[in-house]
Amino acid sequence: PNQYLAGLPTTIFTIMSQLAVKHGAINLGQGFPDTEGPQDIIQVAAEALQDGRNQYAPLTGLPELREAVASSNRRFYGLEIDPATEIVVTSGATEALAACLMAVVEPGDEVVVIEPLYDTYLPALRLLGAVPRCVRLQPPHWSLPEAELRAAFGPKTKAIMLNSPMNPSGKVFVREELELIADLVREHDAYAICDEVYEHLTFHVKHMPLMTLPGMRERCMRIGSAGKSFSLTGWKVGYVTAPAALASVVAKAHQVLVFATAPNLQRAVAYGLNKDESYYQALSAQMETQRDLLRDGLHRLGFETLPADGSYFIVADISRHAEGRSDVDFARWLVEHAGVATIPVSAFYDPEGDAPPQNLIRFAFCKKPEILSEALKRLEKAL
Amino acid sequence: PNQYLAGLPTTIFTIMSQLAVKHGAINLGQGFPDTEGPQDIIQVAAEALQDGRNQYAPLTGLPELREAVASSNRRFYGLEIDPATEIVVTSGATEALAACLMAVVEPGDEVVVIEPLYDTYLPALRLLGAVPRCVRLQPPHWSLPEAELRAAFGPKTKAIMLNSPMNPSGKVFVREELELIADLVREHDAYAICDEVYEHLTFHVKHMPLMTLPGMRERCMRIGSAGKSFSLTGWKVGYVTAPAALASVVAKAHQVLVFATAPNLQRAVAYGLNKDESYYQALSAQMETQRDLLRDGLHRLGFETLPADGSYFIVADISRHAEGRSDVDFARWLVEHAGVATIPVSAFYDPEGDAPPQNLIRFAFCKKPEILSEALKRLEKAL
Ligand SMILES: CSCCC(=O)C(=O)O
Ligand SMILES: CSCCC(=O)C(=O)O
Repeated sequence: PNQYLAGLPTTIFTIMSQLAVKHGAINLGQGFPDTEGPQDIIQVAAEALQDGRNQYAPLTGLPELREAVASSNRRFYGLEIDPATEIVVTSGATEALAACLMAVVEPGDEVVVIEPLYDTYLPALRLLGAVPRCVRLQPPHWSLPEAELRAAFGPKTKAIMLNSPMNPSGKVFVREELELIADLVREHDAYAICDEVYEHLTFHVKHMPLMTLPGMRERCMRIGSAGKSFSLTGWKVGYVTAPAALASVVAKAHQVLVFATAPNLQRAVAYGLNKDESYYQALSAQMETQRDLLRDGLHRLGFETLPADGSYFIVADISRHAEGRSDVDFARWLVEHAGVATIPVSAFYDPEGDAPPQNLIRFAFCKKPEILSEALKRLEKAL
Repeated sequence: PNQYLAGLPTTIFTIMSQLAVKHGAINLGQGFPDTEGPQDIIQVAAEALQDGRNQYAPLTGLPELREAVASSNRRFYGLEIDPATEIVVTSGATEALAACLMAVVEPGDEVVVIEPLYDTYLPALRLLGAVPRCVRLQPPHWSLPEAELRAAFGPKTKAIMLNSPMNPSGKVFVREELELIADLVREHDAYAICDEVYEHLTFHVKHMPLMTLPGMRERCMRIGSAGKSFSLTGWKVGYVTAPAALASVVAKAHQVLVFATAPNLQRAVAYGLNKDESYYQALSAQMETQRDLLRDGLHRLGFETLPADGSYFIVADISRHAEGRSDVDFARWLVEHAGVATIPVSAFYDPEGDAPPQNLIRFAFCKKPEILSEALKRLEKAL
């Protein structure tokens, strides 16, 4: 078998979710909501199965979904996108990431990534023969170090992968940071793969797509996801918004990787995307309430937390409680003895790079308030 | 953008389907049924949306679907497969092909493929840095040339991709051919990626998975597809059956490429796979009736056809009617002037290889009998 793939560890999400089941733990590890998405969207998906459209969808997605993605780009960000040529529907954001990388990199190209990072970024780019240049956000404020970022760009840079709102950190990149990134992308004639699956999950800060900055319209591939926007992570419907010249190449990658996505789910997502702003506001308000509940509880237990203005996640510093144990050992101890599953943040760093911080664990707050409260009680009891 | 991907032509299926729409043609090009799959399966998919299982499915698929795939392997082929470790559910067979290739090849490895071939095989393997070694079936009987096949295997051979029943040829490989392939795979310590999506669509010949031959259990990745077995091509639910050591690597590739597949569709496919043999018999009997109708009609019109014992497809020799035009020109003429879309078979040959045959076009017979009859009438009128 392929040596690199065979050597990849099982994803930490699967490991922690399995441990959670084994120990009857509350799963604040893997990021999926414990509520269902909106009933009306689910209803549309069920009805859409019944009227004779169960054969292949078009390669780039159903027209109604591409229209809805374009409309969403216009309403939220003032972006004018051509639904016919600038959108590619994918089987979730993971496939979108792979397809975007495939569309731009060639073996030997460098790709700038920001740690801590989502766990398919590095395998996806390494399997294409690309070389990662990692820049680390700095705790305790998740600040982006300008000098390191500049140094990571060079003559071989083909792209940066930017995840904002960011998993696992919860960071939402602010305008100054985005401007710095945009400058570097322009300077190095590079592309940006913008993983914005948590675009509608920010808390009193506004998400700003890199694509909205000057000169970025032609260089960005912006990825969204129904899973995150509608709390239906299992559906695996994603979408890439990109200038036509890039979108056509992303479509070719999609053709080789998957080809098409279930029509009934696409139609339901199109319906969902057309919901008015109150839906999105309620979603982020609910998530913010849950973040506050968890964060305040963690503070009461003596954990410091890092800023988390978006996404499903908040990172806590375990130094005070871990008694010298690493994040991996402490997370394992928590699932076994407190009955609460989390994710050690060191899992989000390049295993081939310098030693990662070992004092951070990630909690998911995309869970019902009563579940979060129960988790906090369990933590209190165990600590 | 990536030069190779950017240079790939739009898939011939999309081109011909678009031309079909433009000219109001009957679409005997792209292979999808014009009937719906079984109502009860669709009903299960609709109901499965409603009971709270819309978050991520497990990486390798829902247990009920893996059980059903294992059971199907046992009932049809006597294969004993461990559902826990030897099955990976994918987002369709296209993803399965990409994941299996990724699981075994490294840049520079050679992969033996048999022309005419499905149009993602070559891009998928080339994007991984692998090198195809093409062997051509020989018209008019689609015979497999032993000497050429032997010569295609060598010290760098990592795998063969075998599609049986085969698209676009309609060939079903017979035992002697499979034994030859198995010998070569063993001799060269290689793997076999077995695309068997048409496994239940054979006409009075029995499909034999390469995996059932001596020594092949440990070397084969066998790919099946709900789209083809249940006439629901849009759902994009596929499954790989492989020895545990390989399946675990295929799962890693799936983790990077897509990660998971919609739970409701998986549950409906599990239900479908458990249908008894009469379902599969009726499906292939229906398809055979349609093949006969189309084939006999083509013969009456003076086309010779090549053997088509399985799949959705039959290939016709156009020499008598084409008046020196290539298959591409003739197919274009047919869609415009006869109102019947087909696929020129030259599209299924390596564009970087020797000139392909230009006297063959592919017809899909996965269409209602009245549609096939109407297509024949149109052809008669135009010719
Ligand atoms: C694809 S499983 C992981 C879900 C997720 O985004 C996370 O937990 O970080
Ligand atoms: C994925 S579209 C092509 C469908 C098909 O298998 C074919 O027509 O050959």
